[in-house]
Amino acid sequence: MRGAMLYGPYDVRFEERDAPTILEPTDAIIRISATCVCGSDLWLYRGVTPISAPTPMGHEYCGIVEAVGVEVSSITPGQFVIGSFFTSDNTCPHCLAGYQSSCLHRENINRAQAPLLRVSLADGTLVATPDIPTDDLIPSLLALSDVMATGWFAADAANVTPGKVVVVVGDGAVGLLAMLSAKQRGAGRIIAMSRHPARQQLALEFGATDIVPERGDEGVARIKELTDGIGADAVLECVGTQEAMMQAIRFTRPGGYVGYIGVPHGVTLDGQDLFFRHVRLHGGPAPARRFLPELIELVWKKQINPGKVFDLTLPLDQVAEGYRAMDERRAIKALLLP
Amino acid sequence: MRGAMLYGPYDVRFEERDAPTILEPTDAIIRISATCVCGSDLWLYRGVTPISAPTPMGHEYCGIVEAVGVEVSSITPGQFVIGSFFTSDNTCPHCLAGYQSSCLHRENINRAQAPLLRVSLADGTLVATPDIPTDDLIPSLLALSDVMATGWFAADAANVTPGKVVVVVGDGAVGLLAMLSAKQRGAGRIIAMSRHPARQQLALEFGATDIVPERGDEGVARIKELTDGIGADAVLECVGTQEAMMQAIRFTRPGGYVGYIGVPHGVTLDGQDLFFRHVRLHGGPAPARRFLPELIELVWKKQINPGKVFDLTLPLDQVAEGYRAMDERRAIKALLLP
Repeated sequence: MRGAMLYGPYDVRFEERDAPTILEPTDAIIRISATCVCGSDLWLYRGVTPISAPTPMGHEYCGIVEAVGVEVSSITPGQFVIGSFFTSDNTCPHCLAGYQSSCLHRENINRAQAPLLRVSLADGTLVATPDIPTDDLIPSLLALSDVMATGWFAADAANVTPGKVVVVVGDGAVGLLAMLSAKQRGAGRIIAMSRHPARQQLALEFGATDIVPERGDEGVARIKELTDGIGADAVLECVGTQEAMMQAIRFTRPGGYVGYIGVPHGVTLDGQDLFFRHVRLHGGPAPARRFLPELIELVWKKQINPGKVFDLTLPLDQVAEGYRAMDERRAIKALLLP
Repeated sequence: MRGAMLYGPYDVRFEERDAPTILEPTDAIIRISATCVCGSDLWLYRGVTPISAPTPMGHEYCGIVEAVGVEVSSITPGQFVIGSFFTSDNTCPHCLAGYQSSCLHRENINRAQAPLLRVSLADGTLVATPDIPTDDLIPSLLALSDVMATGWFAADAANVTPGKVVVVVGDGAVGLLAMLSAKQRGAGRIIAMSRHPARQQLALEFGATDIVPERGDEGVARIKELTDGIGADAVLECVGTQEAMMQAIRFTRPGGYVGYIGVPHGVTLDGQDLFFRHVRLHGGPAPARRFLPELIELVWKKQINPGKVFDLTLPLDQVAEGYRAMDERRAIKALLLP
């Protein structure tokens, strides 16, 4: 079979490799129904996070179980499943506390941009849908593997509850789905920081009530103005840069929450500044596994449609074009069909 | 009257100055029953936080109301009151959210090491006790003005609830009272990081279940060992140095809480490290005013005895010796009686 490999900056190749097989009795093999390119893949694609050797890519996936190891008991071949981008046993203390992405036995998924994928710790990682989904549901189900779960975690980490004033920093796919998550959790106001017309449109569809194109000091001033000088109850930081993080911290009200899920790159925080701002900070890689049952139900009942972030669909063998389109911001997120 | 003034590093003088008077209709004048030296005063005393001019000192206080401005309605002359170390109107949005130490109209208290003190925003800052207290209660009531409220906020910020595994970093007065706070809130285990025999003794009296003298990597390893490799549910960081903060962050379990109330000095946090540790961070200057009613009741009913942290009592005119004793760690905390 062929799968996506990154050879260096801007060099993605779709090349032949061995099909995966069951290696451990807790493994499953999935025949991928859809996969996609993640915003976090771009850190590697752009060379911001250097790689030392050709690297298989892809960590978002859903599909039909093709085979399972002898110890797998909760899923069976033929089921449609979604899994998270870290594997988890779902039984260790971190998993039981809801932090499956810090599972003591976690492994990275990084070969999902391919027709077949081996998933270790299948019982603790994969969740089956109620039935085989119709094709129209597949983009939204795929989104639960990472991008939607990550937006949801931003809202969870920032304690978004009914009536809250929420700001979302970042209008990438995760930022947009953080808006949808805030809406679904009953936020009273959702201020989207975005200067990109097509994304602003989707932000409004997902529940944003205000659009703020300003950034930096001007952005902070604008949010303060919109919140009567008080600041926001919850800020969802969906970028990962120093500028985005400092914006988020600066317009959170004292006692308010910053939920940050953009992988921080070169971000440093001054302890004394944080102290006097009185903000609460929580983030990290989303424990997608925690949210999968709830989110699958919401998609299954068509209450949410996170698949809308896919504005480009390509055959999997054109994966390199998916990276290019996202890098150049021609696409919000590229769906890949084997 | 005379009051404490800091002239520079290690130079505290008790010198003549005008007695305070009512300046605003919302002011009160308090005749101080007791005041004390704060661990945070030592940052200035040691020159770590430089001062540009002679600075009046003291922000912890309780005493009898001597006079009030015409707009003060909730307290009356003759009452015994305790106030927080920041004044607050207790009506602005930050106050209503429980963050009175970020009040939009807050002022520093910094002249409390004196027999008389002007307190602005008296209605929103001061809380009266049910009656004039007996002398034995005064140290514990004084402690509520800052040191006990700060330990309590550490436990609040770190979400200490019944059964939780708690670590307290720092065995100063605030750290010790953070242990008492964790105990009062039902913590299942309280691990005190301390290498000072007298403080270890008080830690045990206040509810510590384990004492860990190791620091740095060894301290982290010891806490991990004591928590079956998982880390603590809640870590109360009561120092404010880089080493203490990083210890706290490193032995908090994913999804666990760091409550930090030591004013950070030279502390910088790496965003990506925080991200992958999955910890929750909250701290800042304690909103003592939020906690005063509840804490006064606990002291009044003799359910807590935070005044035990005062292991040195001096007449106020020996305030300079109070600073020396605390700087040299001969005293945990010095009580000053006018």
